[in-house]
Amino acid sequence: MHSICPLLRRASCKSQHLAVRLSVLRAFSVHLQNQVTEEAVNQPSSLGANARRKANLILKTPKGTRDFSPKQMALREKIFSSIISCFKRHGAVTIDTPVFELKDLLLDSHLEQSKLVYDLKDQGGELLSLRYDLTVPFARYLAMNKIMHFKRYHIAKVYRRDHPSVARGRYREFCQCDFDIAGQYDPMIPDAECLKVMHEILSALQCGEFLIRINDRRILKGIFTVCGVPDAKFEMACSTLDKLGKVSWEEVKTEMVQEKGLLPEVAESIGKYVQFSGGWGLIDQLCQDPKLSESQLAMEGLEDMKLLFEYLTLFGIINQISLDLSLARGMDYYSGVIYEAVLLHQSSSHCKEPIRVDSVAGGGRYDGLVASFNPKGQKVPCVGVSIGVERIFSVMEQNIEMSKEKIHTKETQVLVAAAQKNFLAGRMKLISELWDAGIKAEMFYKKNPKLLNQLQYCEETGIPLVAILGQQEMDDGVVKLRDVATRKEINVPKENLIEEIKRRLEK
Amino acid sequence: MHSICPLLRRASCKSQHLAVRLSVLRAFSVHLQNQVTEEAVNQPSSLGANARRKANLILKTPKGTRDFSPKQMALREKIFSSIISCFKRHGAVTIDTPVFELKDLLLDSHLEQSKLVYDLKDQGGELLSLRYDLTVPFARYLAMNKIMHFKRYHIAKVYRRDHPSVARGRYREFCQCDFDIAGQYDPMIPDAECLKVMHEILSALQCGEFLIRINDRRILKGIFTVCGVPDAKFEMACSTLDKLGKVSWEEVKTEMVQEKGLLPEVAESIGKYVQFSGGWGLIDQLCQDPKLSESQLAMEGLEDMKLLFEYLTLFGIINQISLDLSLARGMDYYSGVIYEAVLLHQSSSHCKEPIRVDSVAGGGRYDGLVASFNPKGQKVPCVGVSIGVERIFSVMEQNIEMSKEKIHTKETQVLVAAAQKNFLAGRMKLISELWDAGIKAEMFYKKNPKLLNQLQYCEETGIPLVAILGQQEMDDGVVKLRDVATRKEINVPKENLIEEIKRRLEK
Repeated sequence: MHSICPLLRRASCKSQHLAVRLSVLRAFSVHLQNQVTEEAVNQPSSLGANARRKANLILKTPKGTRDFSPKQMALREKIFSSIISCFKRHGAVTIDTPVFELKDLLLDSHLEQSKLVYDLKDQGGELLSLRYDLTVPFARYLAMNKIMHFKRYHIAKVYRRDHPSVARGRYREFCQCDFDIAGQYDPMIPDAECLKVMHEILSALQCGEFLIRINDRRILKGIFTVCGVPDAKFEMACSTLDKLGKVSWEEVKTEMVQEKGLLPEVAESIGKYVQFSGGWGLIDQLCQDPKLSESQLAMEGLEDMKLLFEYLTLFGIINQISLDLSLARGMDYYSGVIYEAVLLHQSSSHCKEPIRVDSVAGGGRYDGLVASFNPKGQKVPCVGVSIGVERIFSVMEQNIEMSKEKIHTKETQVLVAAAQKNFLAGRMKLISELWDAGIKAEMFYKKNPKLLNQLQYCEETGIPLVAILGQQEMDDGVVKLRDVATRKEINVPKENLIEEIKRRLEK
Repeated sequence: MHSICPLLRRASCKSQHLAVRLSVLRAFSVHLQNQVTEEAVNQPSSLGANARRKANLILKTPKGTRDFSPKQMALREKIFSSIISCFKRHGAVTIDTPVFELKDLLLDSHLEQSKLVYDLKDQGGELLSLRYDLTVPFARYLAMNKIMHFKRYHIAKVYRRDHPSVARGRYREFCQCDFDIAGQYDPMIPDAECLKVMHEILSALQCGEFLIRINDRRILKGIFTVCGVPDAKFEMACSTLDKLGKVSWEEVKTEMVQEKGLLPEVAESIGKYVQFSGGWGLIDQLCQDPKLSESQLAMEGLEDMKLLFEYLTLFGIINQISLDLSLARGMDYYSGVIYEAVLLHQSSSHCKEPIRVDSVAGGGRYDGLVASFNPKGQKVPCVGVSIGVERIFSVMEQNIEMSKEKIHTKETQVLVAAAQKNFLAGRMKLISELWDAGIKAEMFYKKNPKLLNQLQYCEETGIPLVAILGQQEMDDGVVKLRDVATRKEINVPKENLIEEIKRRLEK
């Protein structure tokens, strides 16, 4: 019974609204009559509550999410198809996993990000969370199916309760396009392929010049260790350092000292290393750094970095690569090489200085993640790349808008039209034949549409052909076929129409 | 501070576990040191808690959900591509919407189904629910963007906290393929096209013989009214009647009387109508039914049904159509014609009697839904069809398994192999050229793989060509090209290799 009280209380607060009070009384009497459950009463089961809620209904998508219009979808599908064709070119197959995972499973891998994970309400049964990325579900899939070698791609949406920034293309629901190679192989060969994949995709999409920043968690850990960061604070220091670029080094340093509890001189000496970026020269310099040489882990990372640079040279992509010691990547699970691609765009046509925008792709090696799902701890080393398609989409959408390029969303080839009244049955019979022959066709859903309207529709939507039915044509056993672009019309014998349409569309 | 208490209480309950107590104390001291928030303590932030959770980690997908393997994905993509090509043939464009919607917005349209809606946890901010279907987000999209005419398709996953039945292909996360026509048009023309779309897709997928059952909510409402069901109980009676087929009429009747409060004689007289199914003959019979004639609504529905039958005859699909008065469809929002396709399959090769399985597609007219999202109540009549791709997938997957048909998941065209040691650099250079030429190529991620293993891999995965590097070939400036099927090898000059591979793949 007490489930009614909140309703009554709410009603007395707004006692001026008689309708509301009436609806509460109605809800109450429904309750008494039907002995409905508490749950059913909490859900507005009366008309009054319905009307009240409807008046307050806000028509929007949830914060940080958005719809995509047909025009946007046409561009997105073009992007996806380019990305998928690259993934397939590299021999990857695809899988799919549920949008949510068991909460414990996700938390295990996203400790540093746990506040940003969307949880489902406990409605009885398992505790679930929306996936935060596609890497953890992939690792769970490998561990669950005891797969030791796998090259897969996965294109799907992921969810983060982050501060959305529409201007920078950052959303709470966004799509990731992941390519990962799992298995124990000779060092840096699959890692190099992931970078080649990243390079091929960004080149193919033509969204502007880009730079791929590379680092290695082992080099970073070595730097942190020789600078005096305790092992237990490594992940934390990484996630703070990851903010560099978005905020200044001064701010990062302050966070390290004041929030993460590092000594000022420790942060200072980290700062000396993370300012470096470069190529072969930097690798040599670091190899000879007396302080860093004390870290065996850093030296391992640098040896592998040499190998990687060699392979990237063979792949012909070394020019877009930069070893960047400030790159940390936000995820806890990275264990080796990490990388991230940024677009370099001119701030204006007068200023030639390229400025850095948010990353459009990223990834790295995570050799321990699969084992963390396995009670026996069996290791399946992995390396992967994730294409941040939302930012690429934002950039390309802006480019198209500026170029005033027209995107066709429809593929319709023929409009079946009538020149006079009373040709609905004729149009329906004809269009049905066209559909069955695999021709993309539309007709107006009116009994007697005006010919002019039908022709105009074709010009607006880019439909190239019109098949026009009329009395004279009917009597002659022909259909009038109109070319929308040239406005030329010819009569085609009914039995040849499909053949003639196909012939024209092939051109 | 009180956020620690549950942890301590839990520990003292299981006081035999010293490790747990230690981890609690550790958590407690971490709390004192760092003054972390309540939230952070509830998330296991100590190593002890981590280890404890890891030991209990269950490796599974959430109840009622599943992963799809590359083999399954290959079949699914074949199905989707067939469905999409039909939607495009009918001139539809596509949109995308977020996986969750504002909770109030969903509840408004799924009152009868509200228990089955997945809610997100209240983590501050908006209250959200996972979408239950694609129809409500579509209607929200139309209302929000004030769109009056639209023909769109949408392929995406939807979520229902139902009792999953894996054997019948019923899941809590499942994919829907929706095609809808919005706009005020002449009666039954778009409705007929939706049925034509349904028919084309089920025919193209070749998943077996099917029957399309049709009814009209107005005819049903007329029947309920003349049988004595109060208006307010119409939706409820529909959702009960919808169970017919899954359970017997006796069980439906019992639910109507005992749970929904209908009089036994009312249920009895409904039973007399809903047993009927048929074609033109049944329409005529109902038009002349003295009792039903009293309902103007039913007569309107029957007039439209005549028109629809006429159009479906013109579309050449009337043979698979049956007017079935027991069809109710579960959704509250249907307002006119409703339909559902069921597969008819032989229970065994000896028994020719077709038995009915669950529906594989359904839909109907919902003229009021968009208006319900609009404070001004502007009406956008809609009709649509949803293809239940999971059940079709289950049937086709079984068929393939029985036929032992082999599905290729990879599209790789060339393996770049080495006949001797020390050809890693050569392989990397060559494969990079192939990729850049758009050829799908793979190589082993080993410095020195065995030739036999490389050739075996091609035979297993169906890669048709191998480009083999060796010292002799290198010296002669050629690459050995092997046809995997015939095992024939020829030497191709390095500069002609790409051309020769493309020539062979075109065949």
